[in-house]
Amino acid sequence: MSHIVHDFNEYREKMNGRILATDNLVVKRFFNLDTNTYQEGALPAKSKEMLGLVASMVLRCDDCIRYHVQECHQAGVTRAEFFEIFSVGLVVGGSIVVPHLRRAVEFLDALEAEPK
Amino acid sequence: MSHIVHDFNEYREKMNGRILATDNLVVKRFFNLDTNTYQEGALPAKSKEMLGLVASMVLRCDDCIRYHVQECHQAGVTRAEFFEIFSVGLVVGGSIVVPHLRRAVEFLDALEAEPK
Amino acid sequence: MSHIVHDFNEYREKMNGRILATDNLVVKRFFNLDTNTYQEGALPAKSKEMLGLVASMVLRCDDCIRYHVQECHQAGVTRAEFFEIFSVGLVVGGSIVVPHLRRAVEFLDALEAEPK
Amino acid sequence: MSHIVHDFNEYREKMNGRILATDNLVVKRFFNLDTNTYQEGALPAKSKEMLGLVASMVLRCDDCIRYHVQECHQAGVTRAEFFEIFSVGLVVGGSIVVPHLRRAVEFLDALEAEPK
Amino acid sequence: MSHIVHDFNEYREKMNGRILATDNLVVKRFFNLDTNTYQEGALPAKSKEMLGLVASMVLRCDDCIRYHVQECHQAGVTRAEFFEIFSVGLVVGGSIVVPHLRRAVEFLDALEAEPK
Amino acid sequence: MSHIVHDFNEYREKMNGRILATDNLVVKRFFNLDTNTYQEGALPAKSKEMLGLVASMVLRCDDCIRYHVQECHQAGVTRAEFFEIFSVGLVVGGSIVVPHLRRAVEFLDALEAEPK
Repeated sequence: MSHIVHDFNEYREKMNGRILATDNLVVKRFFNLDTNTYQEGALPAKSKEMLGLVASMVLRCDDCIRYHVQECHQAGVTRAEFFEIFSVGLVVGGSIVVPHLRRAVEFLDALEAEPK
Repeated sequence: MSHIVHDFNEYREKMNGRILATDNLVVKRFFNLDTNTYQEGALPAKSKEMLGLVASMVLRCDDCIRYHVQECHQAGVTRAEFFEIFSVGLVVGGSIVVPHLRRAVEFLDALEAEPK
Repeated sequence: MSHIVHDFNEYREKMNGRILATDNLVVKRFFNLDTNTYQEGALPAKSKEMLGLVASMVLRCDDCIRYHVQECHQAGVTRAEFFEIFSVGLVVGGSIVVPHLRRAVEFLDALEAEPK
Repeated sequence: MSHIVHDFNEYREKMNGRILATDNLVVKRFFNLDTNTYQEGALPAKSKEMLGLVASMVLRCDDCIRYHVQECHQAGVTRAEFFEIFSVGLVVGGSIVVPHLRRAVEFLDALEAEPK
Repeated sequence: MSHIVHDFNEYREKMNGRILATDNLVVKRFFNLDTNTYQEGALPAKSKEMLGLVASMVLRCDDCIRYHVQECHQAGVTRAEFFEIFSVGLVVGGSIVVPHLRRAVEFLDALEAEPK
Repeated sequence: MSHIVHDFNEYREKMNGRILATDNLVVKRFFNLDTNTYQEGALPAKSKEMLGLVASMVLRCDDCIRYHVQECHQAGVTRAEFFEIFSVGLVVGGSIVVPHLRRAVEFLDALEAEPK
C-alpha cells in the first residue's frame, strides 16, 4: 500500500482506539452513529459516501476527505464521477477548497496506483 | 404556491436580476458556471442536486438549502431519501445544523403540500 | 412570556415534531444523543450548557445561541457570567460574532424581564 | 433614509448600547479595538473597509456585510469597485456566498437611492 | 518533555516573537486582550480555559486545541472532564471534528505521560 | 529559494497539473475564473490580492494565505501594509486566526530573506 494511504489508516485506527479506550458514552455513541449513517437505506451506500465526501470538501477537512475518497473508491466511484463530486465541492465552497482538492487528488492517485 | 416557496423564489429572481444588471464579467461567469455544475454528466443531475443539498446543509445556508430542496423535489427525491441526505448533513455537521434542518423540513412540507 | 422567547420555543417545538414524525433512525438517535450530551456527569450540567453556548457563538448560529442562553439562564448563569462566556466567544471568534452577540443580549434581556 | 438602512442602524446602535451597558472589560476593549482596526494607517481607511467587506462576505455574515457596505459607500467605493470586491468574495467563498450577495446588493441599492 | 508538546510550544513562542517584533498596535493589543480573556473573573480561569477548548474544537483549529488542552491540563482538568468537553464539541460540531479529536487525544496522552 | 517557499510552489504546481489532467470542464473553468478574478480592473491588481489574502486568513486556509502573501509580496505590499491586512483578519476572524498568522509571518519572513 502507498505511504500516504497506509499512514493515514494506521494513525486513524490507532487514535480511534485511544479515543474509545476512555469510557465516554456520548463519544462512543457518536462514533457508532457515524458508522450507521453511511449504511445502505433509501439511498445506496455509494450515494451516501459521495454525500459524505462533498460535505467534507466544503468543510475543508483533509482527513475526512481522505476517508470518504477511500470509501467511495471501494464503492466503485470512477475518476470521472470523483471529479464531478469535486466540481460541486469547488463551486459551492469556492477557491478556498482548491488546496484540499490538491491533496484529495494526491490521495486518489495513490489509491488508484495500488495493485488490486 | 405556498407563501414561503413563492417569496423565496420571487426575491431570488429579483435580486439575481439586480446582480447581473451590473456588468461584472467574473460574477456573470460564476453564475453561469454554477448553473453548469448541476447538469447531467457522469453523475445524474439528481445525484448532483443531492450533493448540492448536503453541501449547503453543512455550510448552514438556509437559502442554498431551500434552493436545492426545491431542485431535489423536482428531480423526484422522496421524503425518505431527503431524510437520509439530512442525516448525513446532521452527523457530519453536528447539532449546529439542527435549526437549518427545521427550516428545511418546513420548506419541504410546503413543497409537498402544493397541488401537482 | 416575551414575544421573541415564546416564538422561538413554539417554532422549535413544532418543527422538532415534524422532524421526528419522519421515521429516520439516524436523525432520531442524533436528537437523542444531543439531549444526553448536556446531562450531569464529570462536569455539572451548568458547565456543559456554558460549553454549548460558547460553541454556538463561535459557530454563529442564532437559534443555537438562543437555546443555550435559555438553558444557561435556567441553570442559574448570572449576567456577569454570561458576559464572560460572550467575551471568550468574541475573542476566539472575532468581530464576525458581534451581530450574534447583539441578538443574544436581546434574548437574554427578554428572559430576564420575565416574571419568575 | 430607506427602511432597511434605517432599521439596520437603529437596531445596531440600540443593542451595542445594551452590550456596553454591562461592565465587561474584555468586551468593551474588543469593541474599541474593532473601531481602531479600520483607521487610516499604512493603508488608507477605504482599503481597510474593503478588506472588512470581503472578510465579512466569505464568512457570510449579513449584518457585517451591511455595515462594511455602508462604510465603503461613505468612503467613496464605486459600484464597479463594489462588484470587484464581490467577485473576489464569490470566487474565494463559492456559491454559498450568493444569497449574501443578493442581500448586499439590495442594501447597496438602498444606499444609492438615498438623497445625498 | 515529549516531542509534540515541545515542538508545539517552541514554534508558538518563536513565531509570536516574530509577530510582536513588527510594531502593529492593533495586533499587539489583540494579543494582549487574548491573554486577559482567560483570567479569573466571575468565572474561574479553569472554566474559561474549558470554554476556549470547546470553541477551538468546533472551529477545528489544531493549534488552538493543543494550546487549550495544555492550559486545561495545567488547571487540573481530569481525563473524564476532558472527554465531556470533547463530547460537547463532537455533538455540536459533528463528525468533521473527529480528526481534530484524534490529534487532541494524542496531545493529551503526551501531556499525561510527562513526569510531574 | 527558501525551503518552505520552494516546496509550497512545487507541490502546488504539480498537483494543479494533476487536477487539470482530468478532463472536467467545470473544474477547468473554475481554475480559469479564479485567475481572472485578480486581474487589474476598477481596482488595481495589488488591491485584489490584498482582498484575496484577508479572505484566506479569515477562512483559515494556510495554502491560500501563502499563495496570496506571495502574490502581494510580488505586487509590492510592504511589511507595514501586510500587518494591517493581518490586523483586519485577526479582528474580524478572532484568535482562531492566530496560528495561521504565525505561519503567514514565517512564510513572509522566508520571502523577504530571498535575494532579489
